[in-house]
Amino acid sequence: MAYPPPETWMARALELARRGLYTTHPNPRVGCVLVKDGRLVGEGYHARAGEPHAEVHALNAAGDAARGATAYVTLEPCSHHGRTGPCAVALIEAGVARVVVAMEDPNPAVAGRGIAMLREAGIEVTVGIAEDEARSLNAGFVRRMDHGRPFVRLKMAMSLDGRTAMQSGESQWITGPEARRQVQRLRARASAVLTGVESVIFDNSRLTVRADQLGLPDAEAIATRQPLRVIVDSRLRLPEAAACLTEPGRTLVVAVEGVDEERIERLTRAGAEVLTLPAGDDGRVDLDAVLRHLAEVEQANEVLLETGATLAGAMLDAGLVDEMQLFVAPTLLGGDARPLFQLAGIETMAHQRGLEILDIRAVGQDWRITARPRRRSQAR
Amino acid sequence: MAYPPPETWMARALELARRGLYTTHPNPRVGCVLVKDGRLVGEGYHARAGEPHAEVHALNAAGDAARGATAYVTLEPCSHHGRTGPCAVALIEAGVARVVVAMEDPNPAVAGRGIAMLREAGIEVTVGIAEDEARSLNAGFVRRMDHGRPFVRLKMAMSLDGRTAMQSGESQWITGPEARRQVQRLRARASAVLTGVESVIFDNSRLTVRADQLGLPDAEAIATRQPLRVIVDSRLRLPEAAACLTEPGRTLVVAVEGVDEERIERLTRAGAEVLTLPAGDDGRVDLDAVLRHLAEVEQANEVLLETGATLAGAMLDAGLVDEMQLFVAPTLLGGDARPLFQLAGIETMAHQRGLEILDIRAVGQDWRITARPRRRSQAR
Repeated sequence: MAYPPPETWMARALELARRGLYTTHPNPRVGCVLVKDGRLVGEGYHARAGEPHAEVHALNAAGDAARGATAYVTLEPCSHHGRTGPCAVALIEAGVARVVVAMEDPNPAVAGRGIAMLREAGIEVTVGIAEDEARSLNAGFVRRMDHGRPFVRLKMAMSLDGRTAMQSGESQWITGPEARRQVQRLRARASAVLTGVESVIFDNSRLTVRADQLGLPDAEAIATRQPLRVIVDSRLRLPEAAACLTEPGRTLVVAVEGVDEERIERLTRAGAEVLTLPAGDDGRVDLDAVLRHLAEVEQANEVLLETGATLAGAMLDAGLVDEMQLFVAPTLLGGDARPLFQLAGIETMAHQRGLEILDIRAVGQDWRITARPRRRSQAR
Repeated sequence: MAYPPPETWMARALELARRGLYTTHPNPRVGCVLVKDGRLVGEGYHARAGEPHAEVHALNAAGDAARGATAYVTLEPCSHHGRTGPCAVALIEAGVARVVVAMEDPNPAVAGRGIAMLREAGIEVTVGIAEDEARSLNAGFVRRMDHGRPFVRLKMAMSLDGRTAMQSGESQWITGPEARRQVQRLRARASAVLTGVESVIFDNSRLTVRADQLGLPDAEAIATRQPLRVIVDSRLRLPEAAACLTEPGRTLVVAVEGVDEERIERLTRAGAEVLTLPAGDDGRVDLDAVLRHLAEVEQANEVLLETGATLAGAMLDAGLVDEMQLFVAPTLLGGDARPLFQLAGIETMAHQRGLEILDIRAVGQDWRITARPRRRSQAR
């Protein structure tokens, strides 16, 4: 009898890992499958920081059957004593014969040491099966470990003629309920939601994950973790009555150093946490510094950028956007409506900003375009 | 042995009809298949006005085999003596036993009379097989016969943020060569290309079909017919040196009544034909009157609208656009670049203009969106 190839078991492990999509922050999403004689004998995934890792769940499920089995894990088993014991040790002690790993752990506390421990114990280790999928599932964690910044996903809702709101700012609703549900899910998977104070002032947006709008069976559990709300507010103009300040979860307002101390105190009393950072060249908050703070202090893997043309344009101009999700409604708002992006220094076609379109698909009545900014050297 | 169903033969007849896509103006595209004992015995299509109709080609191909055969025709056989004899008579005389017709001819000179003649001769006639496809292939001819106006297809090339050119007007090239080839084909199938004088002044566009850019095997033959170039130019500002005036084919410049006679004479000497029409309420050329003229005088079935935000917006506002083909490049031009449409009276979201998206597909590096304006009562 022909056994399924390793890719099949790794695909199952990735499927399990995805179950942690909304809940593992700040940890990566990891799945594990134990296979013996071509038969699955145990599986598991990491659900939540502080709870057991995927390997532990799978070993518990397999019991004695783990002895001599092959473990398929979407991320290198850990070698360090974190909140749980090292998974590499657990696999060795359970008598696993072989370990197949999708990717090395980019965490400098592991970074190959888990694999080395397994090999030293005489276990055969294969690395790199379905690595692209595994990296993509944890693009935020990888980015944070490798670059000290979160993965930034920009979401915009626009009309077919590239407009996000009326001139007055009115924008509810350009896209339909299915697109809005997808935005809720993008929020729910993010460690933090980043926006500008103008957007919050105008829309009085709450920036929360609402269980009833997720359309997921475990929506209530997911919504117990609210992504950190981060408001770029160089001059601390956020009103103390802003709706987001009284929502569950934290709101971090980022201003430039030297802003009025009394404003800081008043906003703090209203429920905000205020962070001050040195100003950039333009006297405003240095956006890269915000991202570095979110990675280092808040352990943010994925940041969802939900904002207007100015901050979105500034983030693009600074090369800080990793992925764009544009929800396009089949409607026209006309040339006086608000633009998608204000971009600096585009005067001729030679300055256009190239994108790579990864996917276009229907979402209810609307369309979702997933794109990636091209690096300047890749301009068309 | 089971014979193929009528839909199969009609699909072949439609395929043949499409061979006339670029050449039958002002006639409809028509294909015909003759089938006897489940076997194709003759087929043909209408290639060019003045040449035989599809039925005649098919009958000639079949010879004696036409006796007792079934004819599948994408349009009702004609009943009138035009440049060729009535096809209904030809089918009767050839002894065809049965005729299957996709749709009635909307031409008031036929309008059921061809079918009636066949039935009177004892031939069994079925109508309505693949009618939607047949109507769609000749949407322009049907529109002209039913409403006295051509079918207007609006083409725009835009960035993903809905911009058609830099503020300076520079726009070459937003989209890539494959999209431009498709635009050439849209021109080639159109009876006329409609634009505004501003676009012509800025781009000095030729608005011609260029054989070497069509990417079709019979490109040279197709390009011998240039679509009528129609320039809306209320005040006759078109320069006599405009490149389009010396290209093969005709250029019709439409101004309001009462413009300077000397300008008319000078433009006429430069190669233009000048038409004056009563001004609309806004003192400019009445766009609906232009379309009615094109249908009635020029027998225009399909008009390709290739222009800027102002005229395109005015045509949309007037409800005169039947279909939009938006070529979207994976690039951003920013909020200062030129908008897709200037639309009147959009102040709140309630005024947004709903579209129905019919198709989205990749075209080289770009994407093509085919959409249809919703009638006001269908607004989302």
